[in-house]
Amino acid sequence: MNELNNENSENNVLKLKQALGKSLEAVDQEIISRLNKSIPLINDIGKHLINASGKRLRPLLTLAMAAQFNDYSKNTIILAAAVEFIHTATLLHDDVVDESNLRRGKKTANIIWGNEFTVLAGDFLFAQSFELMVETESIEALSSLASAACKITQGEFQQMQIANKPETSTEDYIEVIGKKTAELFGASCKSGVIVAGGNIKEQNAAYDYGFNLGLAFQIVDDLMDFNNLPNKMGKNLGDDFKLGKTTLPVILAWQKSNTKEKQFWIKTLKELDQEKHDFNNAIDIFNKYNIFDECKKKTQEFISLSVKSLEKLPNTEIKNYLIGLANESIERSK
Amino acid sequence: MNELNNENSENNVLKLKQALGKSLEAVDQEIISRLNKSIPLINDIGKHLINASGKRLRPLLTLAMAAQFNDYSKNTIILAAAVEFIHTATLLHDDVVDESNLRRGKKTANIIWGNEFTVLAGDFLFAQSFELMVETESIEALSSLASAACKITQGEFQQMQIANKPETSTEDYIEVIGKKTAELFGASCKSGVIVAGGNIKEQNAAYDYGFNLGLAFQIVDDLMDFNNLPNKMGKNLGDDFKLGKTTLPVILAWQKSNTKEKQFWIKTLKELDQEKHDFNNAIDIFNKYNIFDECKKKTQEFISLSVKSLEKLPNTEIKNYLIGLANESIERSK
Repeated sequence: MNELNNENSENNVLKLKQALGKSLEAVDQEIISRLNKSIPLINDIGKHLINASGKRLRPLLTLAMAAQFNDYSKNTIILAAAVEFIHTATLLHDDVVDESNLRRGKKTANIIWGNEFTVLAGDFLFAQSFELMVETESIEALSSLASAACKITQGEFQQMQIANKPETSTEDYIEVIGKKTAELFGASCKSGVIVAGGNIKEQNAAYDYGFNLGLAFQIVDDLMDFNNLPNKMGKNLGDDFKLGKTTLPVILAWQKSNTKEKQFWIKTLKELDQEKHDFNNAIDIFNKYNIFDECKKKTQEFISLSVKSLEKLPNTEIKNYLIGLANESIERSK
Repeated sequence: MNELNNENSENNVLKLKQALGKSLEAVDQEIISRLNKSIPLINDIGKHLINASGKRLRPLLTLAMAAQFNDYSKNTIILAAAVEFIHTATLLHDDVVDESNLRRGKKTANIIWGNEFTVLAGDFLFAQSFELMVETESIEALSSLASAACKITQGEFQQMQIANKPETSTEDYIEVIGKKTAELFGASCKSGVIVAGGNIKEQNAAYDYGFNLGLAFQIVDDLMDFNNLPNKMGKNLGDDFKLGKTTLPVILAWQKSNTKEKQFWIKTLKELDQEKHDFNNAIDIFNKYNIFDECKKKTQEFISLSVKSLEKLPNTEIKNYLIGLANESIERSK
């Protein structure tokens, strides 16, 4: 039943995938053909992760943005493949950095192939993404995605620096997820408009849509760590809590906590001294202060900004799906 | 005395550095200013490695190639900085992959900051290098360096796959060092000619010079692992041997070894079962079959190819230094 709800709540992703089915298939073929041209082990690792990562949300955004301008060109396909390569490269390095074991219910690459090969496979995918982008001969698209790639690594650094610090400000947290997650959403959208020949206003509107959508997605992702409904991300409940990651619910709860509750956060998240019932205790504190609702309110703000920025883009069927996609993103956390 | 010889043997590097002093300084300033704009920890790691890596050989090649066409432009400076960033990024990831402790006598970044930050710092420098290249707006230069970056990671993979396999063919070894080391030398040179406006023939000649020089450099580097003269690379004698790396002297010795000697290589390099005197035993086998001379002969072949390719480039003072640089590169191993 929940599974069904989950499907329904992603209705617009499905509609987009149907509308852009041919292009998406071409993106997959591009990805597979580039991996086949590399050496066998890179091919294995690449395919493992490309298959595991499922949604192709970022390349879908690139394709959708271009489709609003009636662009279904080879360059857009190539760019969308490059976007997925960048995303996949960051996932590989994330797993090494986080020392993860599972991603979407599958063993992570670092567990199967070791850190060494995983680092190198990430490097390869990243370098390959630039080779793809170069083929489009669009300096503007390259610039947008290179800038996002830079910011992703800065965001990952900063995320490590705010780890185990529930006293982090909301602003600092938003800056971190902005760089770590939202920039690539923004650049995926913007680059689609660039190759499709949209003007600067339209390029920026696409970026704003993606960036705000990315912020919303990351907050929902944070929420799902504490949400006991099944989710399709394959994320284990309480993973972030176990590592003492600083996420929005934790930050907001810290701000409202009394002395005793602050001591609880210090023990569990700063000192990582956790007992079995501590995860439920954390949820009790969240419920006491309506933290989940507050997080959803924040998510809704970003979704509204995201949808609003679409006003500057052509009125198309695809645009309706993009509006729907943004609006339903909050459903994932329900 | 040896130190003095070493200085003399790099006479032409010094001459190039003098001739291109202003540009090199501008490259350093570009590097530092980009690192300063990043977040503090990336800045620390970046500067640690940029300071440790010393020679700036690759950016020097980019500048020198452009200077043959009287180009000392801002774009060339930016490209040279990008080349150094790519090189530095690969060193950082190398150290994680090799689990190194020392580089050029200094503690490696992974030891000081841990694998996590080192992986991310490499990613940042790599992404930053593309941001720099984008600024030059030269798709051709970008293409050349993106392709090199791809091949470097493929070469690193393949290097791991031939490790502990002294039975590797010379051809396979040359392919690995071609990708791992020589491609970036080639692209550093080629991209200098591209931004300077050289034609395709000249671009390819520059690439050939760099590529063959890179092969020669890597073989000399391999030799230095077994060479008991002091060297400026800060490499510890026998590091490669301890790890069972498959380098040219080992491959050539394996081909000539009798059954008993093959058993020695199997024990020490495949099974990594090494005793104190085994390093000297290895050198005895090298001496028995004149392996060092054979390696130098191979190096000389690549140097000759390198120098020959310069014929297609303008006759300048800089070109004489580049010829000298190639010829003296073999001196490092003496």
